Amino acid sequence: MVKNRKIILKNRPVGQVEKANFDLVEEDLREPDIGEILVKSSLISVDPYMRNRMNSFKSYVAPYEVGQVIEGDATGTVMQSNSEQFGVGDIVHGSWGWQEYATVQENSLTKINVELAPESAYLGVLGLTGLTAYFGLLEIGQPVEGDTVVISGAAGSTGSIAGQIARIKGCRVIGITGSDQKTEFLEKELEFDAAINYKAWPNVRKPLMKVCPGGVDVYFDNVGGDISDSVFYLINDHARIILCGQISQYNQGRISTGPRLHSLLLIHRARMQGFIVYDYRKKFNEAISRLADWLNSGQLTNQVNIIQGFEQVPDAFLGLFEGENIGKQLVKI
Amino acid sequence: MVKNRKIILKNRPVGQVEKANFDLVEEDLREPDIGEILVKSSLISVDPYMRNRMNSFKSYVAPYEVGQVIEGDATGTVMQSNSEQFGVGDIVHGSWGWQEYATVQENSLTKINVELAPESAYLGVLGLTGLTAYFGLLEIGQPVEGDTVVISGAAGSTGSIAGQIARIKGCRVIGITGSDQKTEFLEKELEFDAAINYKAWPNVRKPLMKVCPGGVDVYFDNVGGDISDSVFYLINDHARIILCGQISQYNQGRISTGPRLHSLLLIHRARMQGFIVYDYRKKFNEAISRLADWLNSGQLTNQVNIIQGFEQVPDAFLGLFEGENIGKQLVKI
Repeated sequence: MVKNRKIILKNRPVGQVEKANFDLVEEDLREPDIGEILVKSSLISVDPYMRNRMNSFKSYVAPYEVGQVIEGDATGTVMQSNSEQFGVGDIVHGSWGWQEYATVQENSLTKINVELAPESAYLGVLGLTGLTAYFGLLEIGQPVEGDTVVISGAAGSTGSIAGQIARIKGCRVIGITGSDQKTEFLEKELEFDAAINYKAWPNVRKPLMKVCPGGVDVYFDNVGGDISDSVFYLINDHARIILCGQISQYNQGRISTGPRLHSLLLIHRARMQGFIVYDYRKKFNEAISRLADWLNSGQLTNQVNIIQGFEQVPDAFLGLFEGENIGKQLVKI
Repeated sequence: MVKNRKIILKNRPVGQVEKANFDLVEEDLREPDIGEILVKSSLISVDPYMRNRMNSFKSYVAPYEVGQVIEGDATGTVMQSNSEQFGVGDIVHGSWGWQEYATVQENSLTKINVELAPESAYLGVLGLTGLTAYFGLLEIGQPVEGDTVVISGAAGSTGSIAGQIARIKGCRVIGITGSDQKTEFLEKELEFDAAINYKAWPNVRKPLMKVCPGGVDVYFDNVGGDISDSVFYLINDHARIILCGQISQYNQGRISTGPRLHSLLLIHRARMQGFIVYDYRKKFNEAISRLADWLNSGQLTNQVNIIQGFEQVPDAFLGLFEGENIGKQLVKI
């Protein structure tokens, strides 16, 4: 019988999430029943959206239950199979979450082809992160060649991919991020046209005006709050604002206040739209195939930030809100 | 030579617009040149958007110039014509604004057929007001039969038409307005499913929840501010928010603050979009023809509020911000 270790939600965070909200518990894992598979985790994903699932109220997905493992994306290796679809040694992707082992249903797994792309890419560029960037930018943002596209949280998992896709589409791409190391990464590694370290300015409106002399056509928003307010002042007529995340707000515990800028949307006939990636499920295969092409042709970088050790999962998650990661944050087991 | 009286912008309002921002001046009107027409006003329109044109900064139309007549929709009769397109006695529509007479270019006028609809309808249901309601609701709101449509400023010129169109489309229509007289008008005369007097509640969220047990699918926003915030809490997945006006904000003189509710748009994958009616110019004729059909079949009411006397124009305009009008506010000369 396999000894499993898993991280559970010990209690719901109020405002700022912290380590004390989690607990690491051990359990004996049951053998796979018919149609089930025992997997051993190799990479575990931590994502900002998980913070919302730690609240008690329903967002677009059900809240996590107190005392239960934190669900989320992971990859791993099949250790035991009671399914005809998977064999021992297969590399798989699933959503068993923050645990070292898991006994899961066969229909909750997909096989990974590690010859096409590294395992980590299936949690990043070719996973829900890449798909979120892809559909958010292309379906909601509808960028046109020559558009100025501004991305907040630009060095994060989704932002860094959205920016690269915008660049592939012939747009001017401006990233807003939280350190000089990240601005350098965006400009040098990902070839953004410009990047702004918002922490170096009292308000990003001024540096943004300088690098967006023609205004902003598309804004891919991962952060909300003050940064987004500054961007709204620069939108062009018929601008598209993609509400992908509001990470600046997740740990506030209450709704913050800010200037009412809807008149700017009105005057500029702008569109602001939220989305979730599952709305585009029917187009996932087509999108993954395009993302894989860009990845293999070198147009798209699979940027991951890997921390070692299962015990580090909560810290890796907390680090997202401190802006510690460049690209997709993963934990290697 | 005709003695004309006109109302000019004497100085730009700072915050609250008031009578002292206007002046009534007399002038000798020049004779019509080739291709020009002398018209005598019969109905003058006052509209909330005019407040924004009194600011010095460019909105989607150029600001009014200090010392110049306030431009805007009007109807009148041709008194003298130096154009082959118009004859003396023709009833015409134009944008000569707040004056008793005007000498205008022939291409700035359109003839009105008063047998099809009363002259006032060409400033209301069949004019820019009706077109604004039509395109905002149908193009941005995309209501589907059975949808719950909430309208703020519901007894105003645009709101009252938008609500009637939503009703024609088989939606449940809820109006938010500012007096019991208006709620009665909306429910009895325009057959809205329910109407709420926001002044009777500390917050409209509670009465709104009661009349929208299934949430809100489409929100036609004419007012912004607190009322709109309350509506946002009730939006359904894939809701559409039409930014048509923000009248609660126009006289504030500075940008007000309020709760940051973009997370609600994100969670519900909602769309919020500004528009101006001129974006749909190519479809104007088709829209007017449909609006005229509804008007003549009695499905749509041409609700106008008429004040008598040219000197009353500024008061009629100021009254818009006090919620004095039911339907389209006009001044009869």
